Amino acid sequence: MPKIVDHKKRKEQIAEATWRVIVAQGMEGATVRNIAKEAGFSLGALRHYFSTQDELLQYAVTLVQDRVTERIKQITMQGKPPKEMVLDILLEFVPVDEDRMAEMEVWIAFAVNFKHRQDVFCTEKDAMYLGLQTMIEKLAMHQLLKDGIELEIETERLYAVVDGLALHAMLNSERVSRDIVERILIGQLDMIFKDA
Amino acid sequence: MPKIVDHKKRKEQIAEATWRVIVAQGMEGATVRNIAKEAGFSLGALRHYFSTQDELLQYAVTLVQDRVTERIKQITMQGKPPKEMVLDILLEFVPVDEDRMAEMEVWIAFAVNFKHRQDVFCTEKDAMYLGLQTMIEKLAMHQLLKDGIELEIETERLYAVVDGLALHAMLNSERVSRDIVERILIGQLDMIFKDA
Repeated sequence: MPKIVDHKKRKEQIAEATWRVIVAQGMEGATVRNIAKEAGFSLGALRHYFSTQDELLQYAVTLVQDRVTERIKQITMQGKPPKEMVLDILLEFVPVDEDRMAEMEVWIAFAVNFKHRQDVFCTEKDAMYLGLQTMIEKLAMHQLLKDGIELEIETERLYAVVDGLALHAMLNSERVSRDIVERILIGQLDMIFKDA
Repeated sequence: MPKIVDHKKRKEQIAEATWRVIVAQGMEGATVRNIAKEAGFSLGALRHYFSTQDELLQYAVTLVQDRVTERIKQITMQGKPPKEMVLDILLEFVPVDEDRMAEMEVWIAFAVNFKHRQDVFCTEKDAMYLGLQTMIEKLAMHQLLKDGIELEIETERLYAVVDGLALHAMLNSERVSRDIVERILIGQLDMIFKDA
């Protein structure tokens, strides 16, 4: 059993090294050689965990999604009022601190560089879109949203605001501060939530 | 005089070849060699117009901005009612057809890959942000916007929606259709424009 734990832990270490390389050097720096060096593994040892670069990059981006999903699960269990809870969830998608900045860079670099590679990056299975869609549907089911709004449009709108803010916070974190991000998101939620 | 015209025309041809390479192969394919081949130039001939790859990429992304700016200028001269005019302007930023798709890919690929290179890609001089800022200020000056809104927040919000939609339309143009983009933008404008 300790061996399985170790195997998973090693893979996560390598994925985290991959994030650091992408943040520092961009996607073009994310070679197996650079990643092995950053993780402190020999090339051979790294190949034991990931046989191809694609496999490694895919694991690295899936781990981002898993961590975001896990943090969102924690938020939903805190029992906050719906609007506050949704705001907390959306803030998980925007790089308002260093960890989230790294995750977002990996996500956007990956999306932009692999958009032609549906075998590696499948937009149909975009976990962030699907997560927002489920959230909006649940809010509607609990009659928390204004009458007459269209769920498809509002999902797409919220996703656009969140990823747009993420992109801009990544490019200019001074201009796009956490305070500004929060106020913009609150405005968007006021648009769709029933008045309290 | 024809020589100067030719020089500018050649540079634009090379920039357009650069766009095609970035759209087809992503930023990592945008080598001087690939671009020369796509443009039908020898390496030596290309070096006559651009002595470094950075210089070429910078010109290619500036040309995107120039073309968008030119189209926006045309729109402002059509004399449409303000809200319709603003919608038309915002649609210039979102890849709702093939030309705009190519431009947006170049812009986002460039932003993501060169964000650490302030010498090449200076976010302080982000022409799209500055353009939106000027537009929002003008609308406020003409008292077209709702009382009490904060211009800085609304500029950032609109920019986030536009670039978020652009990113998602680029990744999945079927889901993020022109009709959906228009309806989302109209909703955002209703948020800030005074009721007619």
